[in-house]
Amino acid sequence: MNIGFIGLGVMGRPMALHLCKAGHSVGIYARRREAADPLVAAGATLSATPAALASTSDVVVTMVTATADVEEVLLGDDGVLSGARPGSIVIDMSTIAPQATRRMADALQRRHVRMLDAPVTGGPAGAEAATLTIMVGGDPAVLDEVRPILERLGQQIVHMGGHGAGQVAKACNQLALLVNAEGVAEALALGERHGLDPRTLRRALLGGIAASRVLEEFGARMAERQFEPGMATRLYDKDLNIVLELAREVGRTLPAAGVVRKHLDEMIARGEGSRDLAALIQTVERLED
Amino acid sequence: MNIGFIGLGVMGRPMALHLCKAGHSVGIYARRREAADPLVAAGATLSATPAALASTSDVVVTMVTATADVEEVLLGDDGVLSGARPGSIVIDMSTIAPQATRRMADALQRRHVRMLDAPVTGGPAGAEAATLTIMVGGDPAVLDEVRPILERLGQQIVHMGGHGAGQVAKACNQLALLVNAEGVAEALALGERHGLDPRTLRRALLGGIAASRVLEEFGARMAERQFEPGMATRLYDKDLNIVLELAREVGRTLPAAGVVRKHLDEMIARGEGSRDLAALIQTVERLED
Repeated sequence: MNIGFIGLGVMGRPMALHLCKAGHSVGIYARRREAADPLVAAGATLSATPAALASTSDVVVTMVTATADVEEVLLGDDGVLSGARPGSIVIDMSTIAPQATRRMADALQRRHVRMLDAPVTGGPAGAEAATLTIMVGGDPAVLDEVRPILERLGQQIVHMGGHGAGQVAKACNQLALLVNAEGVAEALALGERHGLDPRTLRRALLGGIAASRVLEEFGARMAERQFEPGMATRLYDKDLNIVLELAREVGRTLPAAGVVRKHLDEMIARGEGSRDLAALIQTVERLED
Repeated sequence: MNIGFIGLGVMGRPMALHLCKAGHSVGIYARRREAADPLVAAGATLSATPAALASTSDVVVTMVTATADVEEVLLGDDGVLSGARPGSIVIDMSTIAPQATRRMADALQRRHVRMLDAPVTGGPAGAEAATLTIMVGGDPAVLDEVRPILERLGQQIVHMGGHGAGQVAKACNQLALLVNAEGVAEALALGERHGLDPRTLRRALLGGIAASRVLEEFGARMAERQFEPGMATRLYDKDLNIVLELAREVGRTLPAAGVVRKHLDEMIARGEGSRDLAALIQTVERLED
Protein backbone atom coordinates (compact mmCIF):
# COMPACT_ATOMS: atom_id res chain seq x y z
CA MET A 1 0.00 0.00 0.00
CA ASN A 2 1.37 3.43 -0.99
CA ILE A 3 0.99 5.94 1.82
CA GLY A 4 1.29 9.68 1.36
CA PHE A 5 2.13 11.69 4.48
CA ILE A 6 1.64 15.45 4.83
CA GLY A 7 2.76 17.36 7.94
CA LEU A 8 6.22 16.51 9.26
CA GLY A 9 6.22 18.50 12.50
CA VAL A 10 6.85 17.38 16.06
CA MET A 11 4.02 14.81 15.79
CA GLY A 12 4.05 13.93 12.09
CA ARG A 13 7.77 13.30 11.65
CA PRO A 14 8.07 10.37 14.07
CA MET A 15 4.75 8.98 12.82
CA ALA A 16 5.89 9.02 9.18
CA LEU A 17 9.19 7.44 10.20
CA HIS A 18 7.31 4.56 11.90
CA LEU A 19 5.51 3.89 8.60
CA CYS A 20 8.82 3.89 6.68
CA LYS A 21 10.36 1.50 9.19
CA ALA A 22 7.34 -0.80 8.93
CA GLY A 23 8.22 -1.30 5.26
CA HIS A 24 5.43 0.77 3.74
CA SER A 25 6.10 2.69 0.56
CA VAL A 26 5.88 6.25 1.94
CA GLY A 27 5.61 9.44 -0.08
CA ILE A 28 5.74 12.85 1.51
CA TYR A 29 4.96 16.47 0.82
CA ALA A 30 6.59 19.20 2.90
CA ARG A 31 6.17 22.95 2.67
CA ARG A 32 9.62 23.35 4.19
CA ARG A 33 12.15 21.20 2.32
CA GLU A 34 14.34 20.71 5.44
CA ALA A 35 11.43 19.01 7.23
CA ALA A 36 11.57 16.32 4.53
CA ASP A 37 15.26 15.46 4.93
CA PRO A 38 15.02 12.83 7.71
CA LEU A 39 12.18 11.12 5.85
CA VAL A 40 14.00 11.10 2.52
CA ALA A 41 16.99 9.63 4.36
CA ALA A 42 14.64 6.89 5.62
CA GLY A 43 13.56 6.06 2.05
CA ALA A 44 10.48 8.29 1.54
CA THR A 45 9.82 9.87 -1.87
CA LEU A 46 9.27 13.63 -1.96
CA SER A 47 6.42 15.05 -4.07
CA ALA A 48 6.20 18.66 -5.26
CA THR A 49 2.54 19.18 -4.33
CA PRO A 50 -0.19 17.46 -2.28
CA ALA A 51 -1.94 16.70 -5.59
CA ALA A 52 1.12 14.94 -7.00
CA LEU A 53 1.51 12.99 -3.77
CA ALA A 54 -2.16 11.97 -3.77
CA SER A 55 -1.94 10.78 -7.40
CA THR A 56 0.48 8.02 -6.36
CA SER A 57 -1.07 7.17 -2.96
CA ASP A 58 -3.69 4.65 -1.82
CA VAL A 59 -3.91 6.41 1.54
CA VAL A 60 -3.03 10.01 2.38
CA VAL A 61 -2.37 10.90 6.04
CA THR A 62 -2.50 14.56 7.10
CA MET A 63 -1.02 15.75 10.41
CA VAL A 64 -0.99 19.53 10.31
CA THR A 65 -1.88 22.27 12.79
CA ALA A 66 -5.30 23.82 12.33
CA THR A 67 -8.54 23.63 10.37
CA ALA A 68 -7.33 26.10 7.73
CA ASP A 69 -4.18 24.03 7.14
CA VAL A 70 -6.19 20.86 6.50
CA GLU A 71 -8.55 22.75 4.19
CA GLU A 72 -5.64 24.12 2.18
CA VAL A 73 -3.84 20.80 1.93
CA LEU A 74 -6.97 18.87 0.93
CA LEU A 75 -9.08 21.35 -1.04
CA GLY A 76 -6.66 24.13 -2.06
CA ASP A 77 -4.89 24.64 -5.40
CA ASP A 78 -2.76 21.55 -6.07
CA GLY A 79 -4.44 20.05 -3.01
CA VAL A 80 -4.98 16.34 -2.34
CA LEU A 81 -8.46 16.36 -3.84
CA SER A 82 -7.24 17.61 -7.23
CA GLY A 83 -4.92 14.62 -7.58
CA ALA A 84 -6.53 11.88 -5.52
CA ARG A 85 -7.43 8.52 -7.04
CA PRO A 86 -11.09 7.51 -6.81
CA GLY A 87 -11.42 4.99 -3.97
CA SER A 88 -8.41 6.27 -2.08
CA ILE A 89 -8.63 7.18 1.61
CA VAL A 90 -7.66 10.38 3.43
CA ILE A 91 -6.92 10.03 7.15
CA ASP A 92 -6.78 13.42 8.85
CA MET A 93 -4.96 13.03 12.18
CA SER A 94 -4.78 16.77 12.90
CA THR A 95 -6.90 18.29 15.67
CA ILE A 96 -9.50 20.48 13.97
CA ALA A 97 -13.16 21.54 14.17
CA PRO A 98 -15.62 18.62 13.75
CA GLN A 99 -17.94 20.73 11.57
CA ALA A 100 -15.13 21.46 9.12
CA THR A 101 -14.20 17.76 9.09
CA ARG A 102 -17.75 16.87 8.06
CA ARG A 103 -17.74 19.45 5.26
CA MET A 104 -14.41 18.14 3.94
CA ALA A 105 -15.57 14.53 4.15
CA ASP A 106 -18.59 15.52 2.01
CA ALA A 107 -16.43 17.33 -0.55
CA LEU A 108 -14.14 14.32 -0.83
CA GLN A 109 -17.03 11.87 -1.00
CA ARG A 110 -18.41 13.64 -4.08
CA ARG A 111 -15.14 12.75 -5.82
CA HIS A 112 -15.21 9.17 -4.49
CA VAL A 113 -12.45 9.79 -1.97
CA ARG A 114 -13.19 8.41 1.47
CA MET A 115 -12.16 10.21 4.66
CA LEU A 116 -11.61 9.40 8.32
CA ASP A 117 -10.94 11.88 11.10
CA ALA A 118 -8.40 10.27 13.41
CA PRO A 119 -6.92 12.75 15.89
CA VAL A 120 -4.60 11.42 18.55
CA THR A 121 -3.73 11.82 22.22
CA GLY A 122 -0.35 10.99 23.71
CA GLY A 123 1.72 13.99 22.61
CA PRO A 124 5.18 13.98 21.03
CA ALA A 125 6.34 11.21 23.40
CA GLY A 126 3.43 9.02 22.32
CA ALA A 127 4.19 9.73 18.66
CA GLU A 128 7.85 8.72 19.14
CA ALA A 129 6.92 5.55 21.04
CA ALA A 130 3.95 4.70 18.75
CA THR A 131 1.73 4.51 21.84
CA LEU A 132 -0.83 7.10 20.74
CA THR A 133 -4.53 6.65 21.30
CA ILE A 134 -6.34 7.32 18.01
CA MET A 135 -9.98 8.49 18.09
CA VAL A 136 -11.65 7.73 14.78
CA GLY A 137 -14.73 9.18 13.10
CA GLY A 138 -16.15 7.85 9.82
CA ASP A 139 -17.21 4.59 8.21
CA PRO A 140 -16.04 1.58 10.29
CA ALA A 141 -15.42 -0.40 7.09
CA VAL A 142 -12.96 2.27 5.94
CA LEU A 143 -11.31 2.12 9.36
CA ASP A 144 -10.88 -1.63 8.96
CA GLU A 145 -9.05 -1.07 5.65
CA VAL A 146 -6.49 1.28 7.21
CA ARG A 147 -6.29 -0.27 10.68
CA PRO A 148 -2.91 -1.93 9.95
CA ILE A 149 -1.48 1.54 9.23
CA LEU A 150 -2.94 3.07 12.38
CA GLU A 151 -1.66 0.14 14.44
CA ARG A 152 1.88 1.20 13.51
CA LEU A 153 1.23 4.60 15.10
CA GLY A 154 -0.82 3.93 18.18
CA GLN A 155 -1.65 1.42 20.87
CA GLN A 156 -5.38 1.99 21.07
CA ILE A 157 -7.67 2.72 18.13
CA VAL A 158 -11.21 3.65 19.16
CA HIS A 159 -14.05 4.12 16.68
CA MET A 160 -16.17 6.97 18.08
CA GLY A 161 -18.92 7.32 15.43
CA GLY A 162 -19.51 8.98 12.05
CA HIS A 163 -17.53 11.79 10.42
CA GLY A 164 -16.39 14.32 13.03
CA ALA A 165 -16.90 12.00 16.01
CA GLY A 166 -13.15 11.48 16.34
CA GLN A 167 -12.70 15.25 16.48
CA VAL A 168 -15.48 15.61 19.06
CA ALA A 169 -13.73 12.99 21.21
CA LYS A 170 -10.42 14.81 20.83
CA ALA A 171 -12.07 18.08 21.88
CA CYS A 172 -13.45 16.34 24.99
CA ASN A 173 -9.96 14.99 25.67
CA GLN A 174 -8.45 18.46 25.49
CA LEU A 175 -11.21 19.82 27.73
CA ALA A 176 -10.56 17.21 30.43
CA LEU A 177 -6.80 17.66 30.11
CA LEU A 178 -6.88 21.46 30.31
CA VAL A 179 -9.27 21.65 33.27
CA ASN A 180 -7.15 19.06 35.05
CA ALA A 181 -4.04 21.18 34.37
CA GLU A 182 -5.81 24.19 35.90
CA GLY A 183 -6.65 22.14 39.01
CA VAL A 184 -3.09 20.87 39.36
CA ALA A 185 -1.76 24.42 38.96
CA GLU A 186 -4.16 25.75 41.62
CA ALA A 187 -3.27 22.89 43.98
CA LEU A 188 0.52 23.19 43.62
CA ALA A 189 0.35 27.00 43.86
CA LEU A 190 -1.79 26.85 47.02
CA GLY A 191 0.48 24.28 48.64
CA GLU A 192 3.62 26.25 47.88
CA ARG A 193 2.07 29.43 49.32
CA HIS A 194 1.50 27.47 52.53
CA GLY A 195 5.09 26.30 52.69
CA LEU A 196 4.91 22.88 51.04
CA ASP A 197 7.57 21.68 48.63
CA PRO A 198 5.76 21.24 45.28
CA ARG A 199 7.84 18.18 44.40
CA THR A 200 6.86 16.42 47.63
CA LEU A 201 3.26 17.50 47.23
CA ARG A 202 3.13 16.15 43.66
CA ARG A 203 4.59 12.84 44.85
CA ALA A 204 2.02 12.54 47.65
CA LEU A 205 -0.89 13.39 45.35
CA LEU A 206 0.26 10.81 42.78
CA GLY A 207 -0.43 8.17 45.46
CA GLY A 208 -4.15 8.92 45.70
CA ILE A 209 -7.34 9.71 43.83
CA ALA A 210 -5.93 13.01 42.51
CA ALA A 211 -3.35 11.02 40.49
CA SER A 212 -3.35 11.81 36.78
CA ARG A 213 -1.02 11.91 33.81
CA VAL A 214 -1.35 15.70 33.91
CA LEU A 215 -0.09 15.74 37.51
CA GLU A 216 2.67 13.34 36.58
CA GLU A 217 3.91 15.17 33.48
CA PHE A 218 2.80 18.83 33.62
CA GLY A 219 2.92 18.70 37.44
CA ALA A 220 6.60 17.72 37.29
CA ARG A 221 7.35 20.63 34.98
CA MET A 222 5.34 23.01 37.19
CA ALA A 223 7.24 21.86 40.29
CA GLU A 224 10.61 22.18 38.53
CA ARG A 225 9.64 25.46 36.78
CA GLN A 226 10.47 23.90 33.40
CA PHE A 227 8.44 25.88 30.90
CA GLU A 228 10.13 24.85 27.64
CA PRO A 229 7.57 23.09 25.43
CA GLY A 230 6.45 20.18 24.88
CA MET A 231 3.55 21.57 23.00
CA ALA A 232 3.21 25.34 22.80
CA THR A 233 0.30 26.64 24.91
CA ARG A 234 -1.22 28.45 21.91
CA LEU A 235 -1.94 25.04 20.35
CA TYR A 236 -4.05 24.15 23.40
CA ASP A 237 -5.75 27.50 23.07
CA LYS A 238 -6.66 26.60 19.48
CA ASP A 239 -8.16 23.32 20.75
CA LEU A 240 -10.08 25.15 23.47
CA ASN A 241 -11.71 27.30 20.77
CA ILE A 242 -13.02 24.10 19.21
CA VAL A 243 -14.34 22.96 22.61
CA LEU A 244 -16.15 26.21 23.30
CA GLU A 245 -17.62 26.30 19.79
CA LEU A 246 -18.97 22.76 20.34
CA ALA A 247 -20.58 23.94 23.58
CA ARG A 248 -22.16 26.94 21.86
CA GLU A 249 -23.58 24.71 19.11
CA VAL A 250 -25.61 22.81 21.68
CA GLY A 251 -26.46 25.84 23.81
CA ARG A 252 -24.32 24.80 26.77
CA THR A 253 -21.80 26.59 28.96
CA LEU A 254 -18.65 24.97 30.39
CA PRO A 255 -17.57 27.10 33.35
CA ALA A 256 -14.27 25.38 34.12
CA ALA A 257 -13.31 25.50 30.45
CA GLY A 258 -14.13 29.22 30.65
CA VAL A 259 -11.63 29.65 33.51
CA VAL A 260 -8.91 27.93 31.49
CA ARG A 261 -9.76 30.04 28.44
CA LYS A 262 -9.26 33.22 30.47
CA HIS A 263 -5.91 32.01 31.79
CA LEU A 264 -4.58 30.85 28.41
CA ASP A 265 -5.65 34.18 26.88
CA GLU A 266 -3.70 35.97 29.64
CA MET A 267 -0.62 33.86 28.91
CA ILE A 268 -0.81 34.58 25.21
CA ALA A 269 -1.40 38.30 25.83
CA ARG A 270 1.76 38.36 27.94
CA GLY A 271 3.74 36.75 25.09
CA GLU A 272 3.91 33.36 26.83
CA GLY A 273 2.00 31.44 24.14
CA SER A 274 5.04 29.47 23.05
CA ARG A 275 5.71 28.20 26.59
CA ASP A 276 4.68 24.79 27.84
CA LEU A 277 1.22 24.50 29.38
CA ALA A 278 3.03 24.01 32.72
CA ALA A 279 3.57 27.80 32.71
CA LEU A 280 -0.12 28.05 33.56
CA ILE A 281 1.01 27.85 37.19
CA GLN A 282 2.59 31.30 36.84
CA THR A 283 -0.75 32.78 35.82
CA VAL A 284 -2.48 31.08 38.74
CA GLU A 285 0.17 32.37 41.14
CA ARG A 286 -0.55 35.94 40.04
CA LEU A 287 -4.25 35.77 40.93
CA GLU A 288 -4.99 37.97 43.92
CA ASP A 289 -8.14 37.87 45.96
CA MET B 1 2.06 -0.89 71.76
CA ASN B 2 -1.52 -0.14 72.85
CA ILE B 3 -3.45 1.70 70.16
CA GLY B 4 -6.71 3.54 70.79
CA PHE B 5 -8.91 4.13 67.73
CA ILE B 6 -11.75 6.66 67.54
CA GLY B 7 -14.03 6.93 64.50
CA LEU B 8 -15.30 3.66 63.06
CA GLY B 9 -17.02 4.92 59.92
CA VAL B 10 -16.52 3.92 56.30
CA MET B 11 -12.81 4.80 56.51
CA GLY B 12 -12.02 4.13 60.19
CA ARG B 13 -13.57 0.68 60.51
CA PRO B 14 -11.36 -1.11 57.94
CA MET B 15 -8.32 0.80 59.21
CA ALA B 16 -8.92 -0.28 62.82
CA LEU B 17 -9.49 -3.85 61.65
CA HIS B 18 -6.11 -3.84 59.89
CA LEU B 19 -4.46 -2.88 63.18
CA CYS B 20 -6.29 -5.69 65.02
CA LYS B 21 -5.22 -8.21 62.38
CA ALA B 22 -1.62 -7.01 62.60
CA GLY B 23 -1.63 -8.19 66.24
CA HIS B 24 -1.72 -4.77 67.91
CA SER B 25 -3.62 -4.39 71.16
CA VAL B 26 -6.46 -2.16 69.94
CA GLY B 27 -8.90 -0.23 72.11
CA ILE B 28 -11.83 1.64 70.66
CA TYR B 29 -14.36 4.30 71.52
CA ALA B 30 -17.59 4.57 69.52
CA ARG B 31 -20.47 7.00 69.94
CA ARG B 32 -22.77 4.43 68.36
CA ARG B 33 -22.36 1.05 70.06
CA GLU B 34 -23.23 -0.90 66.89
CA ALA B 35 -20.24 0.66 65.08
CA ALA B 36 -18.03 -1.09 67.66
CA ASP B 37 -19.40 -4.61 67.13
CA PRO B 38 -17.16 -5.76 64.24
CA LEU B 39 -14.12 -4.44 66.10
CA VAL B 40 -15.05 -6.12 69.37
CA ALA B 41 -15.55 -9.32 67.38
CA ALA B 42 -11.99 -8.86 66.06
CA GLY B 43 -10.63 -8.59 69.62
CA ALA B 44 -10.73 -4.84 70.29
CA THR B 45 -11.57 -3.53 73.78
CA LEU B 46 -14.38 -0.99 74.07
CA SER B 47 -13.91 2.07 76.30
CA ALA B 48 -16.73 4.22 77.66
CA THR B 49 -15.13 7.57 76.85
CA PRO B 50 -12.23 8.95 74.77
CA ALA B 51 -10.53 9.85 78.08
CA ALA B 52 -10.76 6.27 79.36
CA LEU B 53 -9.44 4.99 76.03
CA ALA B 54 -6.52 7.44 76.09
CA SER B 55 -5.58 6.44 79.64
CA THR B 56 -4.69 2.93 78.42
CA SER B 57 -3.19 3.89 75.03
CA ASP B 58 0.32 4.71 73.85
CA VAL B 59 -1.07 6.02 70.58
CA VAL B 60 -4.57 7.35 69.88
CA VAL B 61 -5.76 7.46 66.25
CA THR B 62 -8.74 9.67 65.34
CA MET B 63 -10.62 9.26 62.06
CA VAL B 64 -13.76 11.36 62.33
CA THR B 65 -15.58 13.75 60.00
CA ALA B 66 -14.93 17.42 60.61
CA THR B 67 -12.89 19.91 62.60
CA ALA B 68 -15.56 20.17 65.34
CA ASP B 69 -15.60 16.39 65.76
CA VAL B 70 -11.85 16.24 66.31
CA GLU B 71 -12.02 19.14 68.76
CA GLU B 72 -14.74 17.42 70.76
CA VAL B 73 -13.00 14.05 70.81
CA LEU B 74 -9.63 15.52 71.80
CA LEU B 75 -10.45 18.57 73.93
CA GLY B 76 -14.09 18.09 75.02
CA ASP B 77 -15.44 16.74 78.32
CA ASP B 78 -14.05 13.23 78.81
CA GLY B 79 -11.94 13.90 75.72
CA VAL B 80 -8.60 12.31 74.90
CA LEU B 81 -6.61 15.12 76.49
CA SER B 82 -8.26 14.67 79.90
CA GLY B 83 -7.09 11.04 80.05
CA ALA B 84 -3.96 10.92 77.92
CA ARG B 85 -0.65 9.72 79.29
CA PRO B 86 2.25 12.18 79.12
CA GLY B 87 4.45 11.17 76.21
CA SER B 88 1.65 9.50 74.31
CA ILE B 89 0.94 10.35 70.67
CA VAL B 90 -2.28 11.43 68.96
CA ILE B 91 -2.50 10.79 65.19
CA ASP B 92 -5.41 12.64 63.65
CA MET B 93 -6.19 11.07 60.27
CA SER B 94 -9.41 13.05 59.71
CA THR B 95 -9.52 15.79 57.06
CA ILE B 96 -9.83 19.10 58.91
CA ALA B 97 -8.65 22.70 58.85
CA PRO B 98 -4.85 23.07 59.19
CA GLN B 99 -5.23 26.09 61.50
CA ALA B 100 -7.36 24.06 63.92
CA THR B 101 -4.83 21.22 63.79
CA ARG B 102 -2.07 23.60 64.86
CA ARG B 103 -4.14 24.91 67.77
CA MET B 104 -4.91 21.38 68.95
CA ALA B 105 -1.28 20.33 68.62
CA ASP B 106 -0.35 23.28 70.86
CA ALA B 107 -2.99 22.40 73.45
CA LEU B 108 -1.81 18.80 73.56
CA GLN B 109 1.86 19.80 73.67
CA ARG B 110 1.24 21.80 76.85
CA ARG B 111 0.18 18.52 78.49
CA HIS B 112 3.14 16.63 77.00
CA VAL B 113 1.02 14.81 74.46
CA ARG B 114 2.49 14.78 70.96
CA MET B 115 0.36 15.10 67.84
CA LEU B 116 0.62 14.36 64.14
CA ASP B 117 -1.85 15.32 61.44
CA ALA B 118 -2.00 12.40 59.01
CA PRO B 119 -4.94 12.69 56.61
CA VAL B 120 -5.20 10.15 53.83
CA THR B 121 -6.12 9.80 50.19
CA GLY B 122 -7.38 6.63 48.55
CA GLY B 123 -10.98 6.55 49.75
CA PRO B 124 -12.91 3.61 51.22
CA ALA B 125 -11.31 1.20 48.71
CA GLY B 126 -7.84 2.34 49.77
CA ALA B 127 -8.76 1.94 53.44
CA GLU B 128 -9.99 -1.63 52.81
CA ALA B 129 -6.90 -2.57 50.81
CA ALA B 130 -4.48 -0.69 53.13
CA THR B 131 -3.15 1.16 50.09
CA LEU B 132 -3.80 4.69 51.37
CA THR B 133 -1.36 7.52 50.87
CA ILE B 134 -0.82 9.25 54.23
CA MET B 135 0.26 12.92 54.29
CA VAL B 136 1.90 13.72 57.61
CA GLY B 137 2.47 17.01 59.44
CA GLY B 138 4.44 17.31 62.68
CA ASP B 139 7.78 16.27 64.17
CA PRO B 140 9.54 13.71 61.93
CA ALA B 141 10.92 11.93 65.03
CA VAL B 142 7.35 11.35 66.23
CA LEU B 143 6.46 10.06 62.78
CA ASP B 144 9.33 7.58 63.01
CA GLU B 145 7.91 6.24 66.29
CA VAL B 146 4.51 5.50 64.76
CA ARG B 147 5.59 4.62 61.25
CA PRO B 148 5.07 0.87 61.80
CA ILE B 149 1.42 1.61 62.64
CA LEU B 150 0.89 3.80 59.58
CA GLU B 151 2.55 1.19 57.38
CA ARG B 152 -0.29 -1.17 58.28
CA LEU B 153 -2.78 1.34 56.84
CA GLY B 154 -1.11 2.79 53.78
CA GLN B 155 1.35 2.19 51.01
CA GLN B 156 2.98 5.59 50.92
CA ILE B 157 3.72 7.77 53.95
CA VAL B 158 4.92 11.27 53.04
CA HIS B 159 6.19 13.78 55.61
CA MET B 160 5.00 17.17 54.39
CA GLY B 161 6.30 19.53 57.12
CA GLY B 162 5.34 20.82 60.57
CA HIS B 163 1.92 20.69 62.29
CA GLY B 164 -0.86 21.26 59.75
CA ALA B 165 1.29 20.51 56.68
CA GLY B 166 -0.40 17.14 56.25
CA GLN B 167 -3.77 18.89 56.25
CA VAL B 168 -2.57 21.51 53.75
CA ALA B 169 -1.42 18.69 51.45
CA LYS B 170 -4.79 16.96 51.84
CA ALA B 171 -6.59 20.20 50.96
CA CYS B 172 -4.44 20.50 47.83
CA ASN B 173 -5.31 16.88 47.00
CA GLN B 174 -9.02 17.57 47.28
CA LEU B 175 -8.64 20.72 45.18
CA ALA B 176 -6.90 18.82 42.36
CA LEU B 177 -9.40 15.96 42.59
CA LEU B 178 -12.49 18.17 42.56
CA VAL B 179 -11.38 20.37 39.66
CA ASN B 180 -10.47 17.23 37.74
CA ALA B 181 -13.95 15.83 38.44
CA GLU B 182 -15.48 19.04 37.08
CA GLY B 183 -13.38 18.73 33.92
CA VAL B 184 -14.34 15.08 33.44
CA ALA B 185 -18.02 15.97 33.95
CA GLU B 186 -17.82 18.81 31.40
CA ALA B 187 -16.01 16.57 28.90
CA LEU B 188 -18.38 13.60 29.21
CA ALA B 189 -21.44 15.87 29.11
CA LEU B 190 -20.18 17.70 26.01
CA GLY B 191 -19.38 14.45 24.23
CA GLU B 192 -22.75 12.95 25.01
CA ARG B 193 -24.53 16.06 23.75
CA HIS B 194 -22.68 15.57 20.47
CA GLY B 195 -23.73 11.95 20.19
CA LEU B 196 -20.76 10.10 21.66
CA ASP B 197 -21.22 7.13 23.97
CA PRO B 198 -19.77 8.23 27.32
CA ARG B 199 -18.38 4.75 28.03
CA THR B 200 -16.45 4.71 24.75
CA LEU B 201 -15.31 8.29 25.29
CA ARG B 202 -14.04 7.46 28.79
CA ARG B 203 -12.15 4.46 27.43
CA ALA B 204 -10.52 6.54 24.68
CA LEU B 205 -9.53 9.32 27.09
CA LEU B 206 -7.99 6.81 29.51
CA GLY B 207 -5.48 6.00 26.74
CA GLY B 208 -4.00 9.50 26.62
CA ILE B 209 -2.82 12.50 28.59
CA ALA B 210 -6.31 13.13 30.01
CA ALA B 211 -6.07 9.82 31.89
CA SER B 212 -6.64 10.09 35.62
CA ARG B 213 -7.98 8.10 38.54
CA VAL B 214 -10.92 10.52 38.61
CA LEU B 215 -11.75 9.65 34.98
CA GLU B 216 -11.29 5.98 35.77
CA GLU B 217 -13.43 5.86 38.90
CA PHE B 218 -15.83 8.83 38.94
CA GLY B 219 -15.87 8.82 35.11
CA ALA B 220 -17.13 5.23 35.15
CA ARG B 221 -19.92 6.15 37.56
CA MET B 222 -20.81 9.24 35.51
CA ALA B 223 -20.99 7.15 32.32
CA GLU B 224 -23.12 4.48 34.03
CA ARG B 225 -25.25 7.03 35.92
CA GLN B 226 -24.34 5.34 39.21
CA PHE B 227 -24.77 8.01 41.86
CA GLU B 228 -24.81 5.92 45.02
CA PRO B 229 -21.87 6.97 47.19
CA GLY B 230 -18.83 6.20 47.63
CA MET B 231 -18.28 9.32 49.67
CA ALA B 232 -21.20 11.71 50.01
CA THR B 233 -20.68 14.91 48.03
CA ARG B 234 -21.27 17.06 51.12
CA LEU B 235 -18.00 15.68 52.56
CA TYR B 236 -16.15 17.04 49.52
CA ASP B 237 -17.95 20.33 50.05
CA LYS B 238 -16.59 20.42 53.61
CA ASP B 239 -13.09 19.86 52.22
CA LEU B 240 -13.57 22.59 49.63
CA ASN B 241 -14.38 25.02 52.46
CA ILE B 242 -10.96 24.24 53.90
CA VAL B 243 -9.35 24.83 50.49
CA LEU B 244 -11.04 28.21 50.00
CA GLU B 245 -10.20 29.31 53.54
CA LEU B 246 -6.52 28.46 52.88
CA ALA B 247 -6.67 30.58 49.71
CA ARG B 248 -8.22 33.51 51.61
CA GLU B 249 -5.53 33.30 54.29
CA VAL B 250 -2.84 34.03 51.69
CA GLY B 251 -4.94 36.54 49.71
CA ARG B 252 -5.35 34.29 46.67
CA THR B 253 -8.28 33.30 44.51
CA LEU B 254 -8.76 29.87 42.91
CA PRO B 255 -11.20 30.29 40.02
CA ALA B 256 -11.66 26.62 39.10
CA ALA B 257 -12.22 25.75 42.76
CA GLY B 258 -14.83 28.52 42.74
CA VAL B 259 -16.65 26.83 39.85
CA VAL B 260 -16.73 23.53 41.73
CA ARG B 261 -17.93 25.28 44.90
CA LYS B 262 -20.87 26.74 42.98
CA HIS B 263 -21.79 23.35 41.53
CA LEU B 264 -21.50 21.46 44.82
CA ASP B 265 -23.61 24.15 46.52
CA GLU B 266 -26.25 23.67 43.83
CA MET B 267 -26.22 19.90 44.36
CA ILE B 268 -26.63 20.31 48.11
CA ALA B 269 -29.38 22.91 47.67
CA ARG B 270 -31.27 20.42 45.50
CA GLY B 271 -30.98 17.77 48.21
CA GLU B 272 -28.32 15.78 46.34
CA GLY B 273 -25.60 16.18 48.99
CA SER B 274 -25.64 12.52 49.91
CA ARG B 275 -25.05 11.38 46.32
CA ASP B 276 -21.71 10.40 44.93
CA LEU B 277 -19.54 13.15 43.45
CA ALA B 278 -20.23 11.52 40.06
CA ALA B 279 -23.66 13.19 40.23
CA LEU B 280 -21.80 16.43 39.47
CA ILE B 281 -22.37 15.54 35.81
CA GLN B 282 -26.11 16.14 36.28
CA THR B 283 -25.42 19.70 37.44
CA VAL B 284 -23.11 20.30 34.49
CA GLU B 285 -25.73 18.93 32.08
CA ARG B 286 -28.24 21.48 33.37
CA LEU B 287 -26.02 24.48 32.54
CA GLU B 288 -27.49 26.44 29.68
CA ASP B 289 -25.69 29.07 27.70
